Amino acid sequence: MLMVVKSGGPAAMPEWRSLYRSLLPELEIVGWDDPELDPARVEYAMVWEPTPGRLAQFPALRVILSSAAGVDHITRDPSVPAHLPIVRMVTPETGERMADFVTACAYAIVRDFPALRDAQTARRWDESLVGRRASETTVAILGLGNLGVACALRLAANGFRVRGWSRTPKQIAQCESFAGDDGLHACVANADIVVNLLPDTAATRNLIDRRFLAALPRGASLINVGRAPQVDIQAVVASLDSGHLHSAFLDVFDSEPLTPNDPLWQHPKLWLSSHIASAVSRESKARQVVKAILADQAGQALEHVYAADFGY
Amino acid sequence: MLMVVKSGGPAAMPEWRSLYRSLLPELEIVGWDDPELDPARVEYAMVWEPTPGRLAQFPALRVILSSAAGVDHITRDPSVPAHLPIVRMVTPETGERMADFVTACAYAIVRDFPALRDAQTARRWDESLVGRRASETTVAILGLGNLGVACALRLAANGFRVRGWSRTPKQIAQCESFAGDDGLHACVANADIVVNLLPDTAATRNLIDRRFLAALPRGASLINVGRAPQVDIQAVVASLDSGHLHSAFLDVFDSEPLTPNDPLWQHPKLWLSSHIASAVSRESKARQVVKAILADQAGQALEHVYAADFGY
Ligand SMILES: NC(=O)c1ccc[n+]([C@@H]2O[C@H](COP(=O)([O-])OP(=O)(O)OC[C@H]3O[C@@H](n4cnc5c(N)ncnc54)[C@H](OP(=O)(O)O)[C@@H]3O)[C@@H](O)[C@H]2O)c1
Ligand SMILES: NC(=O)c1ccc[n+]([C@@H]2O[C@H](COP(=O)([O-])OP(=O)(O)OC[C@H]3O[C@@H](n4cnc5c(N)ncnc54)[C@H](OP(=O)(O)O)[C@@H]3O)[C@@H](O)[C@H]2O)c1
Repeated sequence: MLMVVKSGGPAAMPEWRSLYRSLLPELEIVGWDDPELDPARVEYAMVWEPTPGRLAQFPALRVILSSAAGVDHITRDPSVPAHLPIVRMVTPETGERMADFVTACAYAIVRDFPALRDAQTARRWDESLVGRRASETTVAILGLGNLGVACALRLAANGFRVRGWSRTPKQIAQCESFAGDDGLHACVANADIVVNLLPDTAATRNLIDRRFLAALPRGASLINVGRAPQVDIQAVVASLDSGHLHSAFLDVFDSEPLTPNDPLWQHPKLWLSSHIASAVSRESKARQVVKAILADQAGQALEHVYAADFGY
Repeated sequence: MLMVVKSGGPAAMPEWRSLYRSLLPELEIVGWDDPELDPARVEYAMVWEPTPGRLAQFPALRVILSSAAGVDHITRDPSVPAHLPIVRMVTPETGERMADFVTACAYAIVRDFPALRDAQTARRWDESLVGRRASETTVAILGLGNLGVACALRLAANGFRVRGWSRTPKQIAQCESFAGDDGLHACVANADIVVNLLPDTAATRNLIDRRFLAALPRGASLINVGRAPQVDIQAVVASLDSGHLHSAFLDVFDSEPLTPNDPLWQHPKLWLSSHIASAVSRESKARQVVKAILADQAGQALEHVYAADFGY
């Protein structure tokens, strides 16, 4: 049994090898650019941003294992054979870490850390920066999948008023559910904070645009932990500059890594991070991959499989 | 019935007058420096940092109402008549706002916002800044009173491992209780985050000193929302500079407002705020004061009274 790995670059290969050796000794591991790689023997591929065209060159490939929860970095290659199942990376850690990060950002907004940092830089004592209460703050979560639900539950446990939007309606304790194109406007009207946790699909691309932002109440904030193509970043910057949006926390970008000369770095109302909102440990990922491989070998149904019909 | 008010300065007097007029019309309100003030008629005093010597000059004074949860700003005046009850300001908002702020700081530490901000300033993409999980983070809360308990419950609801220290032992769900001088070391050993919510008393002054900080694990952080005299600020700065302490969030200072030339403002590992951790609305405060006055007038026991024996 052979798996080719492209995740974390060559530097990560020793860790992957040692993890898989201990979890599933009969699984042979080969790096994506290893000259010894025999394409005919590859049955599994664990990948992040696979080079377009390459996956189609493995005739014995059975399952593509995404190294991330999103699969847009795989499906953007039209040559990927349509019959191959693509398994999303959903580990027990994924939702927990995302809920940690989104809650951290929501609290930073509620207690106005951006303004507190500005006051500190200006050496200004300012007793007016009292923030607002979590319990008087409405958070709208776009996408109520594995990650959106984890965030909804955590935010609700903190007293935030939580709403969520998804393709199909949901029943989640303490989270008002909105669905479909019609539900979007009602979900985000009066939202103090919008959290984007949608997958990148044709239907979600450019969803958060100028019109969307203008419909939010003045002083609202955005947390983008989904994918960059869903957000018109120039519209976000314009809304921040006009004073309509209060702040935006961005973890994902059109081109990653963001280059040092990107003007986003120095925008005073943007808080940036390097796609680390839910960076799951390699051990958790390897365990998940092994689970999927064992299920495949046993002829069982795979979990968290990409549905091409919906694009996620 | 006359109450003298010193809270928020002369600018706040119109709001106090209108609040008390609607809540208790028979209560006459006079400002602390009002030339019309007749000391002989003062029965109640609602105060923040009353000028030393002044409270002793009101012969008919029945109750001193602190405008804050702490009363150190009143008790530091040795001339305050010992027989007068001093009521602490404990409103339903106080614990909620403090839990919001402390949780905001704890999450900022857990997800390493200080390092994320530094990376952004340096325009550096850094995928290593993944933070830690709340559920693998131990928070030690010094002081398990009204505010400490509110924070303990909120942090526990977020999955943090919570411990607390108080004079007398407590039973609080999901919070390990430590008490007395002997319990302090065990409480803070292995604490990733220490939250100070002790009252300023002879026993708590300078508790967080060089030795205390050195006993924390390397990489720990401090959140001081109690009072400044409990913390040796030079020891904190030295520990940050040596790389032992990771970061400190300070909301209270030896002299407030902190002056623009104070070197603390620009320390890269300090996150400062202007004593706003739990800034309760004037309306909540006025409601609480009216409750106390009505209880006093009805001859009922007052709640939240300062205990001189313990100094808080
Ligand atoms: N920044 C990071 O570190 C990071 C880490 C992991 C993941 N992510 C991003 O987070 C995304 C979500 O992950 P997940 O595991 O929660 O995905 P998921 O379980 O597939 O959930 C996707 C959610 O989006 C909803 N949705 C999809 N298309 C929609 C549309 N057109 N209109 C309305 N709702 C729509 C789905 O609705 P239904 O429930 O009705 O199907 C579902 O609730 C990933 O795709 C990835 O882009 C980011
Ligand atoms: N930054 C802000 O915005 C802000 C706002 C409000 C208050 N504060 C500060 O927060 C403090 C706490 O407020 P609170 O309402 O929670 O007070 P509290 O209800 O009186 O609680 C004080 C706690 O400290 C413990 N304690 C006192 N002396 C101790 C000692 N020598 N050793 C160990 N434990 C000791 C007490 O133990 P027992 O339970 O055994 O009595 C109690 O648990 C106030 O005094 C004030 O300084 C700050």
